[in-house]
Amino acid sequence: MEQLSQFFKQITNHNNREPKNLYNPIDYVLSQDGKHLRPQMVYISTQLFNGPTEAALYPAAAFELLHNFTLIHDDIMDQAPQRRGEPSVYKKWNTNIAILSGDAMATFALQTMLQTPTTADIKLELSHLISKTSIEICEGQQYDLDFENQKNVSISEYLKMIRLKTAVMIAGCLKAGAILSQTSPKNQQIAYDIGINIGIAFQLKDDLLDIYGDNTVFGKINGGDIKENKKTYPLLRAIEDATPEQKLKLSNYLSLPDSKFEEKFMLIKKLYEELEIKKKCENLILEYGNQALNLLNTLDDINPKGKEVLQDWITRLRDRDK
Amino acid sequence: MEQLSQFFKQITNHNNREPKNLYNPIDYVLSQDGKHLRPQMVYISTQLFNGPTEAALYPAAAFELLHNFTLIHDDIMDQAPQRRGEPSVYKKWNTNIAILSGDAMATFALQTMLQTPTTADIKLELSHLISKTSIEICEGQQYDLDFENQKNVSISEYLKMIRLKTAVMIAGCLKAGAILSQTSPKNQQIAYDIGINIGIAFQLKDDLLDIYGDNTVFGKINGGDIKENKKTYPLLRAIEDATPEQKLKLSNYLSLPDSKFEEKFMLIKKLYEELEIKKKCENLILEYGNQALNLLNTLDDINPKGKEVLQDWITRLRDRDK
Repeated sequence: MEQLSQFFKQITNHNNREPKNLYNPIDYVLSQDGKHLRPQMVYISTQLFNGPTEAALYPAAAFELLHNFTLIHDDIMDQAPQRRGEPSVYKKWNTNIAILSGDAMATFALQTMLQTPTTADIKLELSHLISKTSIEICEGQQYDLDFENQKNVSISEYLKMIRLKTAVMIAGCLKAGAILSQTSPKNQQIAYDIGINIGIAFQLKDDLLDIYGDNTVFGKINGGDIKENKKTYPLLRAIEDATPEQKLKLSNYLSLPDSKFEEKFMLIKKLYEELEIKKKCENLILEYGNQALNLLNTLDDINPKGKEVLQDWITRLRDRDK
Repeated sequence: MEQLSQFFKQITNHNNREPKNLYNPIDYVLSQDGKHLRPQMVYISTQLFNGPTEAALYPAAAFELLHNFTLIHDDIMDQAPQRRGEPSVYKKWNTNIAILSGDAMATFALQTMLQTPTTADIKLELSHLISKTSIEICEGQQYDLDFENQKNVSISEYLKMIRLKTAVMIAGCLKAGAILSQTSPKNQQIAYDIGINIGIAFQLKDDLLDIYGDNTVFGKINGGDIKENKKTYPLLRAIEDATPEQKLKLSNYLSLPDSKFEEKFMLIKKLYEELEIKKKCENLILEYGNQALNLLNTLDDINPKGKEVLQDWITRLRDRDK
């Protein structure tokens, strides 16, 4: 991912770009140590379909820019003071600067896609893909915000939300590699669907790690979602499966104040145990992960080495503990 | 502009788009009665260069979407509770919804540009143009925010800021019509430069109308910029031209509290009179307006009817009282 860092430096340091209050936050975010999951997905997909891996740098960078734009704006909306162990942009600078540098970054994402060294038609296809993805992510984030004030959220509503907020970007990355490689429309669609399944599994795993993650590995404090009564899969599953008596208990636990967080976390975990939430969640993750692996087997004319790499990725994402 | 309204309805009402909290604000903003200056510039330019006026609907809509996205986000940053006589989006809904619906709108702007019914190469040129414009507008807005906390702002810094914040979009609109019409690169550049001159004249006129506008016509309360000590051209010109004694007076007036606004406005207007600020500002507007008209005369192979329309527009924008 060294190439990616070089590429980002070009964007923000080009001609000593000013104003600094716009470009420094972009630089700050792009030089943080992220997982670079999305660029890797673009590369892996391009390799899988025997495409031009050098040109893949552009869609890879574009999706990483888009991802980071969403993080900057989400942190304002969620009032999240930290990101990757450092102050978030709105905390380090201020809300206005975070809004604007996010706006600029979203545009750089698109501009980068337009610059992909390929044919005009493919550039257009890639640009359509990233703009569609960007709109769907806004929809997903809005649903997520709406859920905070919505009394009842069904599991299917929740899955729709994480599909939009998280999965379509992973799907877009895999499809971008497929488009760039000029593979068949059938393969492109399958690549997209693999991404949807990976993305949903990925978010469900995040939900689970919030409760059961090894916090020395995961790098976060456990129970953050529970503290905020966030409507994650485990909570919604528990609400759906609980007996009337358990429901009443759960409702009482959820209304415990922040000062009793440790007690709240412990009580809810105990209830989750009774309801086998961990197992149910793991089974669903396995289902999505297996669906991704099955889809991978339906692709035609692919690079066997690439297939192995993606298989390995899916397995590791599914089984990760951070 | 009936076509434009129909077009916008398609975007927001397409398949009863949800979530409503994302699409209702977009609908709200797009159905307000704006001046539609930017779409008109795209149309006029397409007519001027004998281009396909039907296809021009797309870049016209794209720039109007981009403009409205900037207004939604600017209103958050400037804490402006009203826009076009109605509550601004962040006031009517909330800041998070305003951030997100603005984000979505910016993406729709680009998506609309990508859909222009023309060749792939022209679509790409138009998309590059709007993304470059969008980034420059972010730069301009950041300079504007920076100026609030910057003690000394020079007139050339101010002109650079309004060039980025306002003029590049007008320039982009005129160039979009030129690109779509496949006129010569020379004509495209001149169209762009005409837009820069119109845009700067337009903003200087806004600065002037804030002080001297007929408020029954202009639809705003006079002196809004003075109330906030906004560093507009008239104020910066006054600071530059004032004698040490006048400078001291001005500095005292600027520190008068809101409760003494009427006195402050009256005193500053009197000082502006001594310094002939109105005339100086009008002269500069005339200069930019004339520069636009001169450039118009250097274009080759244009539609004479279109030329008349643009001439008329420039004259009216320069001389407008609202």
